[in-house]
Amino acid sequence: MQWSMKVDMALPVPVRVILRGVGQVFFCGNAVTGLIFLIALYVGGVTAGLAATVGVVTSTITAYLLGFSDDDIDAGLYGFNGTLVGPCLFLFLENTPQLWIYVVLASILSSVVLAALIRILTPYKIPASTSPFVLTCWMFMVAVYSFDSFSRGPVLPSPEIPAAIASADLPAAAWLSSMTAETTEMWYVALTKGVAEVMFADNVLVGILFLIGIAITSWRGAFMALCGTFVGVLVPILLGANQNLIEMGLYAFNPVLTMMAIGWVFLKPSTGTAFLALIAGILTVICQAGLANFLAPIGLPTLTFPFVLVMWMFLFAAGISKHWSN
Amino acid sequence: MQWSMKVDMALPVPVRVILRGVGQVFFCGNAVTGLIFLIALYVGGVTAGLAATVGVVTSTITAYLLGFSDDDIDAGLYGFNGTLVGPCLFLFLENTPQLWIYVVLASILSSVVLAALIRILTPYKIPASTSPFVLTCWMFMVAVYSFDSFSRGPVLPSPEIPAAIASADLPAAAWLSSMTAETTEMWYVALTKGVAEVMFADNVLVGILFLIGIAITSWRGAFMALCGTFVGVLVPILLGANQNLIEMGLYAFNPVLTMMAIGWVFLKPSTGTAFLALIAGILTVICQAGLANFLAPIGLPTLTFPFVLVMWMFLFAAGISKHWSN
Amino acid sequence: MQWSMKVDMALPVPVRVILRGVGQVFFCGNAVTGLIFLIALYVGGVTAGLAATVGVVTSTITAYLLGFSDDDIDAGLYGFNGTLVGPCLFLFLENTPQLWIYVVLASILSSVVLAALIRILTPYKIPASTSPFVLTCWMFMVAVYSFDSFSRGPVLPSPEIPAAIASADLPAAAWLSSMTAETTEMWYVALTKGVAEVMFADNVLVGILFLIGIAITSWRGAFMALCGTFVGVLVPILLGANQNLIEMGLYAFNPVLTMMAIGWVFLKPSTGTAFLALIAGILTVICQAGLANFLAPIGLPTLTFPFVLVMWMFLFAAGISKHWSN
Repeated sequence: MQWSMKVDMALPVPVRVILRGVGQVFFCGNAVTGLIFLIALYVGGVTAGLAATVGVVTSTITAYLLGFSDDDIDAGLYGFNGTLVGPCLFLFLENTPQLWIYVVLASILSSVVLAALIRILTPYKIPASTSPFVLTCWMFMVAVYSFDSFSRGPVLPSPEIPAAIASADLPAAAWLSSMTAETTEMWYVALTKGVAEVMFADNVLVGILFLIGIAITSWRGAFMALCGTFVGVLVPILLGANQNLIEMGLYAFNPVLTMMAIGWVFLKPSTGTAFLALIAGILTVICQAGLANFLAPIGLPTLTFPFVLVMWMFLFAAGISKHWSN
Repeated sequence: MQWSMKVDMALPVPVRVILRGVGQVFFCGNAVTGLIFLIALYVGGVTAGLAATVGVVTSTITAYLLGFSDDDIDAGLYGFNGTLVGPCLFLFLENTPQLWIYVVLASILSSVVLAALIRILTPYKIPASTSPFVLTCWMFMVAVYSFDSFSRGPVLPSPEIPAAIASADLPAAAWLSSMTAETTEMWYVALTKGVAEVMFADNVLVGILFLIGIAITSWRGAFMALCGTFVGVLVPILLGANQNLIEMGLYAFNPVLTMMAIGWVFLKPSTGTAFLALIAGILTVICQAGLANFLAPIGLPTLTFPFVLVMWMFLFAAGISKHWSN
Repeated sequence: MQWSMKVDMALPVPVRVILRGVGQVFFCGNAVTGLIFLIALYVGGVTAGLAATVGVVTSTITAYLLGFSDDDIDAGLYGFNGTLVGPCLFLFLENTPQLWIYVVLASILSSVVLAALIRILTPYKIPASTSPFVLTCWMFMVAVYSFDSFSRGPVLPSPEIPAAIASADLPAAAWLSSMTAETTEMWYVALTKGVAEVMFADNVLVGILFLIGIAITSWRGAFMALCGTFVGVLVPILLGANQNLIEMGLYAFNPVLTMMAIGWVFLKPSTGTAFLALIAGILTVICQAGLANFLAPIGLPTLTFPFVLVMWMFLFAAGISKHWSN
């Protein structure tokens, strides 16, 4: 919206860059949106909020000190991976004072990895997106087993749950039956948490705040996010996936990002690309399940890598399509 | 052969494109060859034949709808990955009605992945080959563990067999002893099945039909396929690999493709490239064993990825060679 | 040093190329340095020395026969991966006569993989470094499980040790306490072995010879190697890693290579790049721990891949930095 862009431009540069960095988690280079996201993160939990703040500041300063593109830094592109690194490490590792050193190191590395991927992907006009966050966090999370100074925190139920308990307790029918107070509640919770889980928040309110933040930048963006969370609830229901995971939105946060990327940000908006986004969203659910089972033996979560993989495939393919070019 | 090209050109476009798609599994952009392959697939099993048909049609139509290169579509390049996706999923997953949805989705994805890889690899003049089929099938096969609607079928003995039972019951001597009726039979079965297993057929006749089909397009191609299956039987015997796997041709289908690719399709045919193809074929056997053991813990088969990896290495390397350029 | 370059140029071409190949393990295209490295290898063990010799000769001849760049061959670039392949396979697999065939095949493949990576990475001005050695050895080492002709040798204690026994017996305090004869000895052993383990030698003298060899080519190189081994001992101590591994130098050989690559070879030498090298060295320790735990279930060692990954990230990133360009 017009007014939010004016506020964004009126802010002092450092504040604007940092807030845009938070906003870019959902592809929104807008400080107002970023502020709402940051507030939402603190609503979800003070530690998560602080960790995100440390992350976004560290990764942005790193990019500045290492001399990466000023335009990219100004757009907040060196901020969103750090924003995600912080809460991620605090969710999956035990909360100790040393962990802050880990968050700082990981945020530094995320900016180096992002610059490396920008170098590789820019000739193809393909974004690195959240892949630096994923690769960095995976590395730090699996390294922890070797170091006494760190240990694993209580791990959330996640799509990585062993196949044995992955069968749904509740049949698809329960979700798809005629609308009762209970099914409405289930859908409402799953859909909003699906958006919130992009930044690791298991919280309905956070999801709503994220949607509002996105809508301030773009209605189409918010619509695609809604479609994505809907796909991420409906498709796993139809395929018979674990109902706890569905209700926590853990199948939905990847399709949310995929559908926003394909249907709004990186291809020309049209009915055609909206349909393409839908296909990509459905495939992201399957990719999520596949990658989760693939990583389960090492105890790593998928994070947003299913989104990254499917988005890359579709954007690379769009590059040689007569209909959609990016 | 001349006549087969004339028949190929005389066919109506849709039929020609689909049949060429089947033919391209063995690098043959020739509808007559494709028809023989398709007949062979139905000989191997009606379900496999139907699944291949659904796959090739779906992936080709997808490429057309997404606006990928008409020349590539016409050559059948958007068909062979779909051809392989179908029978593969029906071999490794349980045969249920829902599986057809999975085959359609996977065939669509295989065309998107192919386009993405074409975008990346074309500047290097390197083919994506069967890698989209492999990546897509791996993803769907490992995703299945999370979904109630699907389950694993009876899995074939494969190179993924645990090391404990991987020791050969029969010493290499038995294969290499003076020619008796029994050893002749063993070699005959292993060599033909080695070709048939490229499309998952554990069937001598299918292998012979495949060889005839290839010979119709190119004698050198058929010769390289024969050399490849020979390497894929002899080398594992000498290295002391599991004899059941050897006799089922499960060490041979990858070298078959490698030797065809290096010795016939992608480099200028000469004595030098024939020798290079031989080295590549031998290394493919080792790569097959390595990848199989690497994937065993997750329960995934290698499919044709050993061929893809070795071929990529040799073709990239050929790109900077003074003697062989591609 | 001047005199070593004069000796290098005065040698007959084949001898010079082979010795430079050995020298390139530490980025030194200098035959005198290479000769000292080779002597050190034989000091470490005659089999290791012989295997390295067979490896470097095979991989260099392969590059010549396959027609790869004469300049690269002359600089010894097609030799160092073979140099590493030989001792690596003899360390991790059982010493049998057949193993020599394996060493020859792996050295051939290492040159093909190097050429392939040169083709891919040269446009970015990024070196393939030891990645062909790592990829080739991983493939051969994991293939072995399928073949009766080979078996695993007694495996060294390595960072792949299960988490259960990975906890340090000795607290960091013991290493960092006031300097006694014992702590001095511990540091001396760990620091020199850290350099020696780059070529799999668990030997103080070999490490010293390597450092002398590097110093003959470049003082800055030797200084960076020393800093690298220091980082590779201090950082894991502070993080609380397994003390046996630290004392054997198994956390140090990767940072040694990383700091030499970033702080001396591939970026313009300055205070800035020295600092960058330090950050890269610290991250290499974490990457080492992460990759080791990642590979542990398959029983593979990290080899020098942590160095390769971190170096690639930093060099790709440097390519778009205003301050450091490569």
